Amino acid sequence: MDTKKDIANIKTLIAKLAALKVGSYGDFLLSWDKSLAELDATFVTADILRAMREADISPRLWDSGIAVSNFRDNSTRTRFSFASACDLLGLYVQDLDEGKSQIAHGETVRETANMISFLSEAIGIRDDMYLGEGDKYQREVAKSLDEGVAAGLLPSRPAVVNLQSDIDHPTQAMADFLHLAHHFGGIDKLKGKKLAMTWAYSPSYGKPLSVPQGVIGLASRFGMNISLAHPAGYDLIPEVVALSKKQAAASGGSFSHVSSMDEAFRGADIVYPKSWAPYDVMLDRVPLLHNGDSAGLKDLEKACLANNAKFTDWECTEEKMKLTAGGKALYMHCLPADITGVSCKQGEVAASVFDRYRDDTYREAGYKPYIIAAMILLAKFADPAKTLEAVLARGTKRRI
Amino acid sequence: MDTKKDIANIKTLIAKLAALKVGSYGDFLLSWDKSLAELDATFVTADILRAMREADISPRLWDSGIAVSNFRDNSTRTRFSFASACDLLGLYVQDLDEGKSQIAHGETVRETANMISFLSEAIGIRDDMYLGEGDKYQREVAKSLDEGVAAGLLPSRPAVVNLQSDIDHPTQAMADFLHLAHHFGGIDKLKGKKLAMTWAYSPSYGKPLSVPQGVIGLASRFGMNISLAHPAGYDLIPEVVALSKKQAAASGGSFSHVSSMDEAFRGADIVYPKSWAPYDVMLDRVPLLHNGDSAGLKDLEKACLANNAKFTDWECTEEKMKLTAGGKALYMHCLPADITGVSCKQGEVAASVFDRYRDDTYREAGYKPYIIAAMILLAKFADPAKTLEAVLARGTKRRI
Amino acid sequence: MDTKKDIANIKTLIAKLAALKVGSYGDFLLSWDKSLAELDATFVTADILRAMREADISPRLWDSGIAVSNFRDNSTRTRFSFASACDLLGLYVQDLDEGKSQIAHGETVRETANMISFLSEAIGIRDDMYLGEGDKYQREVAKSLDEGVAAGLLPSRPAVVNLQSDIDHPTQAMADFLHLAHHFGGIDKLKGKKLAMTWAYSPSYGKPLSVPQGVIGLASRFGMNISLAHPAGYDLIPEVVALSKKQAAASGGSFSHVSSMDEAFRGADIVYPKSWAPYDVMLDRVPLLHNGDSAGLKDLEKACLANNAKFTDWECTEEKMKLTAGGKALYMHCLPADITGVSCKQGEVAASVFDRYRDDTYREAGYKPYIIAAMILLAKFADPAKTLEAVLARGTKRRI
Repeated sequence: MDTKKDIANIKTLIAKLAALKVGSYGDFLLSWDKSLAELDATFVTADILRAMREADISPRLWDSGIAVSNFRDNSTRTRFSFASACDLLGLYVQDLDEGKSQIAHGETVRETANMISFLSEAIGIRDDMYLGEGDKYQREVAKSLDEGVAAGLLPSRPAVVNLQSDIDHPTQAMADFLHLAHHFGGIDKLKGKKLAMTWAYSPSYGKPLSVPQGVIGLASRFGMNISLAHPAGYDLIPEVVALSKKQAAASGGSFSHVSSMDEAFRGADIVYPKSWAPYDVMLDRVPLLHNGDSAGLKDLEKACLANNAKFTDWECTEEKMKLTAGGKALYMHCLPADITGVSCKQGEVAASVFDRYRDDTYREAGYKPYIIAAMILLAKFADPAKTLEAVLARGTKRRI
Repeated sequence: MDTKKDIANIKTLIAKLAALKVGSYGDFLLSWDKSLAELDATFVTADILRAMREADISPRLWDSGIAVSNFRDNSTRTRFSFASACDLLGLYVQDLDEGKSQIAHGETVRETANMISFLSEAIGIRDDMYLGEGDKYQREVAKSLDEGVAAGLLPSRPAVVNLQSDIDHPTQAMADFLHLAHHFGGIDKLKGKKLAMTWAYSPSYGKPLSVPQGVIGLASRFGMNISLAHPAGYDLIPEVVALSKKQAAASGGSFSHVSSMDEAFRGADIVYPKSWAPYDVMLDRVPLLHNGDSAGLKDLEKACLANNAKFTDWECTEEKMKLTAGGKALYMHCLPADITGVSCKQGEVAASVFDRYRDDTYREAGYKPYIIAAMILLAKFADPAKTLEAVLARGTKRRI
Repeated sequence: MDTKKDIANIKTLIAKLAALKVGSYGDFLLSWDKSLAELDATFVTADILRAMREADISPRLWDSGIAVSNFRDNSTRTRFSFASACDLLGLYVQDLDEGKSQIAHGETVRETANMISFLSEAIGIRDDMYLGEGDKYQREVAKSLDEGVAAGLLPSRPAVVNLQSDIDHPTQAMADFLHLAHHFGGIDKLKGKKLAMTWAYSPSYGKPLSVPQGVIGLASRFGMNISLAHPAGYDLIPEVVALSKKQAAASGGSFSHVSSMDEAFRGADIVYPKSWAPYDVMLDRVPLLHNGDSAGLKDLEKACLANNAKFTDWECTEEKMKLTAGGKALYMHCLPADITGVSCKQGEVAASVFDRYRDDTYREAGYKPYIIAAMILLAKFADPAKTLEAVLARGTKRRI
């Protein structure tokens, strides 16, 4: 490891960050709430934190402090990413394990948000099961914290980080795009590239819409040519699609909504084939989940799986990959993927395709901890470049 | 933030703490086991730790060390308070998740207490469900640790902190009174103030007696005029009431045991209306809980709720608040409160009353992490003032 | 505490460690995969870490970093030992709570191993329930990590520490032998000592074979005379017994396989009477566990308990202890022990025997956190003696 070169590289990145003039940007709930400079600052900060860690410089920002981990749905990789990010910055992760019903909306959210925040710096929330509710919940928490600070009850405002809502999954999408930036040599290199965001068959149901929504909502900021494809009935939230179209046009890209995987894949530079639930099923599921109606859920699942089964040909096969630009589009996935003949009989992707891109998907995932750490840093520090300069000047080694 | 002024303030508080000549005061199980100087030292230390944190001075005392979190009943706010306190001091919280039966009394307590303590500095225990057993369990743990240290098995004695037992809830009550001290301008200002500790209706049952017991057991040390009110059958542990009476007399206060909320509220400076279970119900519940007799528990709950329902007029309404001193008594609650029309159809407090005091109750709760941290510091350090001076001299910032 | 003497002692131990020329020894899966020098280095490093901590010198090696705790079976003491060890070195423990089926073998292991390791330094795994699978799983994780590092996906290779597999329980056995080293005045003093590793009756079934296997696999390295005794049918894995015999011969010790507790105890210097499941039962259990066949498991348990009941006389009584060398063999147990009349009606050991050795068994357990910390240090640092010298030179106090 060439320390001098590492430090020179870090300094260059810090200068780049300083030029963006971004700081204290608050909660990260939806990527489209952030300016391009803010997105860029997040990518650069993630790169700086990673470069520091790999050069054995500890980017610890706090000597103590709590990070709240509030997962209202299961998670392994995002949970580890959040914990890794917080630990890297010096925060101790405390889980908020709420019974689904105990902490409901309204009064209780306000109270709980304050009770867990007296010494907290960040709150990561996953709430992706209930279409129409996850983002709302995160905003309720955020508003409660604002009120707590305004009333002098909280010494500082913890940053809320969306670890997946019903609308967006920005820590995933931002990691996806940092991966693309590194793969193609810069975020600016994405302009004009074709990205196929397509539905894929899976022998499961009820997967959230937030990943495809997060991907099109972000891709459309960078002048990419997006092709969204899914079978009839597997629509995304209409407002997110409309917004993505608008953003694509504004950024000099394009957005086409097509009805076959083949059409989306044709000439694509990047393909993101991934299963998600039908829009109406996600809507119908909400009252069933609230009522704990397991018979109803079983029926819905059965109907949905039967419908899914009509579209088993929506699989990312070698044949379909041949349609992409030079037959060599970059395959992406948020993982875990349903791999035909490996994790299921028939799934989203052929084993040979996945195999060829496995390391890429792992690399893709590896950006997430740094994206989350960057979001927390940028939310909480007014002059992030100055903060990172101070980290560099301090020179604490991460390992003795 | 005026750093010079902050530091001057902290130094004044440290001098105050030094004058109390308190240190290494051991476990904190019952507030009435502590001298007035010890209670005072706890309040002052909590204020110092808070002032340090808010002035961005890290009060980390340990570079590593385990704090055991042993919750034998659900908890959100105390769990977060304990974690926050421990993290602030540099301890890593490890949960002891015991099956209710796995770690029983006797031999196993001795063994477990030692096994979790080889590198531990503090053990926080909540054990409030079993009347006649929670405090006993905490003392068994404490005794086992004493034996472990005496036998040379443990390098040092972890401090046991009562996070709620069947008898007392000292981290709550101490936080309540630090709140009162700040509200009224000092603990000495509480002398002569009337505090109404009253039962209130709730559509639930089985709430522990430890909060009201903790409150009267502590209020009676400071020369307050306590008025305890509850419907017939909702008695507290007789020994705690007797002790509180004695303490009230000794401190120049008074203790009246009345039978209506109105009588307790009349002229009160502070009101603490809160539901708790009937004494006999708590006793009857113990064998049912031990036997996992869910049918018996259901029956008991039904009978208890039916009895509760006779006392729905025990609600802290605007009308009742008008009876208090100038109609402006300070409303207190350990949270969560059962708020009429908000968290339940009919509950402990009217929505408009709670609304007016909501911020006060949140402020009240905000003292708990610092109270717990102070208890650990005072338990483990022989000369706390000197320790805190060393923290100040070190000058490590909590945030870069 | 005589600091000068403490530091001189630590320096002597570091010199001893340096002379062993051991470092970066990788995962610790089976003690017999390690050379004698590596075992010795582990003992010495554990002693150094303990001496440092007790002299109030913080042996923190990392400023941040994740340690993954992957318990596929319940645990209290190993969980606390692992957390204590990691915290001592500066690592934050993140639990990997996997559904038994969610993270299975093959593809998913590879993926999960990478996903949890982007910022991880150590992974502790307990997987002891499935005979023929636990060690295999740990090796699969290790291989996946190797591949992740080779592909440039992971910045460094987390060390895998076996916290109990179907084959070995090296953190237990190594702690056991560090205890013996301190008890008898050095590992070299174990040569020629007789150790009785015997089955004992317990009113439970299905206890793993890894403890007795770990003990004979390690004892046979040090020239001890091992006597293994169990009723017919309670065999250990044949390969481990064969290996132990070979190792015993090679180290100048002996290995006898006898059929009664009396025979094993006769003249023994150390006795380790402990229950374990019959070999065939452990094998039969695997498909039942995999299929979640609770009726089948119930039947198997019933049959096994009935069989166990034929051997209630396999109890470590005062009479049996009289057979040992001078009637004063050192009694050992990994805890918790089934104590007759205390934790069960009839069990592994008489109350009076256990009582006399209780403190010894607690002392034995107390070495485990330091053994685990030593394993991590030796796995991850190329020149452990130099690392520990740097720790000493830094002189950070563990407590202010």
